[in-house]
Order: sequence, then structure tokens, then C-alpha cells
Amino acid sequence: MRAIVLLSGGLDSYTAAAIAQSEGFEIYALTVSYGQRHAAELEAARRVVRALGVARHLELAIDLRAIGGSSLTSVGEVPRDRDVAAASGIPSTYVPARNTIFLSLALAWAEAIEARDTVMGVNALDYSGYPDCRPEFIRAFEALASVATRVGIGGARFRIHTPLIALSKADIIRRGLALHLDYGLTHSCYDPQAAGAPCGRCDSCLLRAKGFAQAGAADPLVMR
Amino acid sequence: MRAIVLLSGGLDSYTAAAIAQSEGFEIYALTVSYGQRHAAELEAARRVVRALGVARHLELAIDLRAIGGSSLTSVGEVPRDRDVAAASGIPSTYVPARNTIFLSLALAWAEAIEARDTVMGVNALDYSGYPDCRPEFIRAFEALASVATRVGIGGARFRIHTPLIALSKADIIRRGLALHLDYGLTHSCYDPQAAGAPCGRCDSCLLRAKGFAQAGAADPLVMR
Repeated sequence: MRAIVLLSGGLDSYTAAAIAQSEGFEIYALTVSYGQRHAAELEAARRVVRALGVARHLELAIDLRAIGGSSLTSVGEVPRDRDVAAASGIPSTYVPARNTIFLSLALAWAEAIEARDTVMGVNALDYSGYPDCRPEFIRAFEALASVATRVGIGGARFRIHTPLIALSKADIIRRGLALHLDYGLTHSCYDPQAAGAPCGRCDSCLLRAKGFAQAGAADPLVMR
Repeated sequence: MRAIVLLSGGLDSYTAAAIAQSEGFEIYALTVSYGQRHAAELEAARRVVRALGVARHLELAIDLRAIGGSSLTSVGEVPRDRDVAAASGIPSTYVPARNTIFLSLALAWAEAIEARDTVMGVNALDYSGYPDCRPEFIRAFEALASVATRVGIGGARFRIHTPLIALSKADIIRRGLALHLDYGLTHSCYDPQAAGAPCGRCDSCLLRAKGFAQAGAADPLVMR
């Protein structure tokens, strides 16, 4: 059975893809280049796709810099050295409607290749500040998909699988290591200057480091 | 008050934009270049934007040809000389999830510029075959928007205005002519060969011709 997997090149989507694959899905990986400053992510997505062995890898470009509203796509600093667990509110790295855009592109591809399943590595625990990483959002998108499409009105039901949504970063890493994933292929850092090597100070690096520490594992990216 | 208007360069979105403007909205026009073969549409969008006088015109490119699934974005003929009123089913010109993608881009921009209103020239009457032109779809997207965004979870409500949804093509044209719109600026034809001049035989040309005839008006594009 075919599944679209939204694959960024980060640790979460790699793990989500591998879980879907272990459940028997044939993977159609979708990577969106949206003008993110940390474009090293795209290289990581290609490495991850090769390691997984997917049916197809589709890269789509949509330049969200023209829309703005996020420190991930515009000039200005990404936050550093924050206590992410204690931070409240929605961080500046939130990109307006990003997951809505990503899921709508996945829905288009799903309809074109007759897939009914989409997999997404969103996580509500570590990033509870992002509105479009919550279960309510996922359910609302599934409801939309059923009325938005040719096959939906024909009675087909689109499902969005979020295997990581209730896991801690440490649990995600444990799942991935059990599936023998090589996290040295991934890229998590938000800092556009840190080409390849993680900055170690942005929210994403800090969450990743905490996750590996709690999982009792070493991050192959940091060991390099 | 700001409103995002999805503006294709066709007759419907021009009319929808003008209606929104007549109701006092400040127009932020969004045109999506999605790999449509009838790219003359984009030139028409620029003409329409100049005629209306908008606060900003944003053109975004997302190449849906890689996804396929439609005669508007892939090789193969667009249907010709059909009896559109009698045709049943969803035509090959349906682009998978296109309006879901367009509305998600509009939502991102709306959130970034603090707009709460989006205007779309969809019409359920003439094109009842398109799933994403129906009121159920619009309501489902509004429900999604309220949980998908920073401001949505803060209590803001996004509205999608579809002033044409229940109008016939003739009624749309009557509304536009009453607003003194110059339909000679627009482009409706689906035929990629017909650069500028309408083919007169695709579904879109046939619906337009019937609309002008029923409105008792001459189409300035055909008079040229």
C-alpha cells in the first residue's frame, strides 16, 4: 500500500517514514523546499531517501519567503540558548500555515497516485507551541480531505498517520535506533550558517541533544 | 479591512475581487503559477490587478506538473466542443487538491499580514463536477483554518467569501458589468495554444460564451 511521507531531512520525519515502512507501506517521499534558511535539510532529505529506499522522491519548491512571518524564512536571528521546555507561546520559528500547505501538496499527490495514506512526523509534545502540530489540526485536515477530492466524494477516506505525535524526543530516538536508523544522515539545526555541522544552540539542536541524552545514546552528528 | 483575493486572471476571480472591493475590502491579490498550460492567465492576472488597483499583488510559483493528474498541467488534450451542461462526472481539467493548495497559501499570507478574510471566485453551479468548488469544501477549510493557525487558536475566525458560488455565469457577468469591469482584460481559455485569443471550443470558452449570450452582452475578447 502506498503512503505519502512528508520528509524534511530531520530526525522526526526519517523515523516516521521508517515506522510506516516497517508497517508495510510503500513510501512516496515528499520534500518541500519552501525557502527555509537551513537548506542543508534538503541534502539530508536526499541522504535519508537513499538509506530508506523509497518508491519515489518528489521535491517541490514553493518560496514562502515572499509571505514571511517566520524567523525560518526571513532575515533575523533564530532563537538561541532558550530553555525550550520552559518557553511559552508560539516561537518565531513558526511558519504560517506551513503544515496546511505541506498536507495540501501531499493530498494532491495522494490523489494523483491513488494513495489514501499520508505520514507526517509531527510531534505535539516537544513543540506544543505550534498550532499545526496538534491532533485537532490533523483531524480537521482529514475532514477537509474527504470533501476536497474526487475520490473523497466517491467515499474514499484519507488518513494522516502521525506515529510520533505523543512521543518524547527520547522515545522517537529509541524507536529509530531499534529500527537501525542512521541519524548521522539527518539535519536538525535551524541556523542557516551551520552548513552541515549543528550549531548546538537553536531550539532544534537543544531538543535533539536532550533527546539523545535521555535516550542514553550518542548523536552521530555531534560525534563527527 | 484587508482581504486576500485568489486571482487567476479569469472572469470569475476578477468579478469576485471587484465585489469585495465594492464592499470596502483592501485587496491583497494572490496569483498562483502552478504549471498551468494556459499561462496566458498570468498575464491577464497582472492586467486585472492594475485595473483594480490593489494593495499588493503576490505571485507564487508551485509546479504541480510534477504531481500530474490533470489535463491542465500535463500533456494530452483539454476537452473540446463538449455539451458542458450535460456532461457528468469530474472533468479531466480537475487539478487534484488545487483549491486546497491555493487556500492554504492564502491562509499563510492572511496570517502573516493579519487578514481574516479570503475571497475566492469559485462557482458551484457551472462546475458542479469539481469537488473543491462546493460549499461543503469551503466550510471544511474554514474549520481547518481556525485550528491550523496561531491567530486561530487565539480565537480569531478566518472567513472565506465566495460571492459567486450560487450564481450562473450570466449573473456573474451582469454583476461585473454593473461594476464597470473590462472583461477584455481577462483570460478564460484552457487551450495552451491559444495565446491571447480564446479557442472558443474548450469547456471554459463554451461556458463563457453561453454566459455572455444569456446576459445579453458582447464579450470584448471575442469582438477583438
